[in-house]
Amino acid sequence: MSDGLVIALSGGVGGAKLALGLSRVLPPAELLVVANTGDDFEHLGLSICPDIDTLTYVLAGLDNPATGWGRRDETWSFMETIATLGGEDWFRLGDRDLALHVERTRRLGAGQTLSQITTDMCRRLGVRPRVLPMSDDRVRTRVRGDAGWIDFQDYFVRQQCRPVVQALAFDGAAAARPQPEVVAALGGGDVRAVVICPSNPFISIDPILAVPGLRAAIETCSAPVVAISPIVGGRAVKGPTAKMMQELGLPVNSATVAGHYGDLLDGYVVDATDVQDIRTELHIAPTLMTTLEDRDALARTVLDFADRLK
Amino acid sequence: MSDGLVIALSGGVGGAKLALGLSRVLPPAELLVVANTGDDFEHLGLSICPDIDTLTYVLAGLDNPATGWGRRDETWSFMETIATLGGEDWFRLGDRDLALHVERTRRLGAGQTLSQITTDMCRRLGVRPRVLPMSDDRVRTRVRGDAGWIDFQDYFVRQQCRPVVQALAFDGAAAARPQPEVVAALGGGDVRAVVICPSNPFISIDPILAVPGLRAAIETCSAPVVAISPIVGGRAVKGPTAKMMQELGLPVNSATVAGHYGDLLDGYVVDATDVQDIRTELHIAPTLMTTLEDRDALARTVLDFADRLK
Repeated sequence: MSDGLVIALSGGVGGAKLALGLSRVLPPAELLVVANTGDDFEHLGLSICPDIDTLTYVLAGLDNPATGWGRRDETWSFMETIATLGGEDWFRLGDRDLALHVERTRRLGAGQTLSQITTDMCRRLGVRPRVLPMSDDRVRTRVRGDAGWIDFQDYFVRQQCRPVVQALAFDGAAAARPQPEVVAALGGGDVRAVVICPSNPFISIDPILAVPGLRAAIETCSAPVVAISPIVGGRAVKGPTAKMMQELGLPVNSATVAGHYGDLLDGYVVDATDVQDIRTELHIAPTLMTTLEDRDALARTVLDFADRLK
Repeated sequence: MSDGLVIALSGGVGGAKLALGLSRVLPPAELLVVANTGDDFEHLGLSICPDIDTLTYVLAGLDNPATGWGRRDETWSFMETIATLGGEDWFRLGDRDLALHVERTRRLGAGQTLSQITTDMCRRLGVRPRVLPMSDDRVRTRVRGDAGWIDFQDYFVRQQCRPVVQALAFDGAAAARPQPEVVAALGGGDVRAVVICPSNPFISIDPILAVPGLRAAIETCSAPVVAISPIVGGRAVKGPTAKMMQELGLPVNSATVAGHYGDLLDGYVVDATDVQDIRTELHIAPTLMTTLEDRDALARTVLDFADRLK
């Protein structure tokens, strides 16, 4: 007897921690992870999908715990060499990681969809829950900084989030079709919860919600929608979330994130160090995920909380 | 005071040995190596140029002496991983070698010519003589075997030369434009010698001669044309040359190769173990290149012989 499907929306590192916890406390058939593809980009002629890849490696147990991105047991011969050939080396691509990008690029060129490729790669690497992109169409996050609009990875990796963010845009989102299995799952009768992982709301979750039809499908989904705040004690655990909120003129706290999601949420999980006056059903629980046990515990907390909201 | 330019036509491993010898006994400005590109192919979405790459690595001192192809100090993480992802792994691409293919593919996509890319890569890797492709246009060697026409690398690497060769073709050669610097060099007044390296005549040298204008430019070149037999003691030093000659119904000896080049040759260097009745000026010298000193010695022998033919 199934408890129903949990649909988790996730970006990379932070979201993948909770996705791993969910994958450990749920049967594989009861978890569908919807990945942000706004971070995707073309680099050195290769199609790179950082959030899909982080999710895949984390769920396969192949991730590098030291960096949070890339693979463990990685080697760097390609990267060392491309620098000597005048190639761009600001985006670090390990030799094993590279195989995924090369093979994905080849298959995209041969006409496979990103969904098909992601599903096959996950299967080959032993990932049992489903991981799907938000869309098979191209969506690209752009950042307006001090010097105008730039590509997301230029901002995020090459310039290490130094530009002051004035605005964000998701090029292609308006014309993108939502991933059909995701839409079907959200409209299905057996959804247990929609979980918005503790990812950056502006650059990891907003691109997913910007795909026409996905926000509406979440709103009309019969299951409770629960978000986990990425803010702990007034700070982001990792990445530019807090810096970005400041630059956009927003208070850096959990209430800002809840307000950003607005009526989409049925419940919100925040850390005791960041309890704010929030206009939605609140659950206070440790949200900092350091150990594997933290991931499992937060996953269980989120599911129990969602079940109570039904 | 220059002795004039030596223009060497070369395939991969065998030819690169003599090219290295020539590069060691000549000032860099006095050597131009013209590389076969009939072996080039697209694999995993990458543009791979095996003969250019072998020449580049050998002349840069980066070659792997154990294999004759690829780089020394190579790692194989990419190759190990792509197999787990369902990618093709029959063509061995090392992690460092891969950087060259990725960067070349990117630059070709950006509109650079293969000549420009090759020149820049050679400069970056410290290769001082010029190395140029026979053409910037696409020429692809095809092999008719037992099961019909197949791509050269399918025959050469994937099927390890097992198919019985019935015929060879150079797709695209008829429409290919010869590399303009090569044509200009051959027509220049200061050519000391045209050297046909001890490469496979059918698959390494014939594609070069099949590019319209190149054979004529060599014939009308004022300098002596000297070939070195790839046959030593009735056997090919490496590769499928002897097997291919047998399958094409030709005696496996130096005379067959000389006869194949015909009137193009002014002189021919053969090993004492394979002296045949040959209708061209003959020079008998050790042609087996095992050590670095062998390469230098054969280079000097070829140049002295060519100088005497003037």
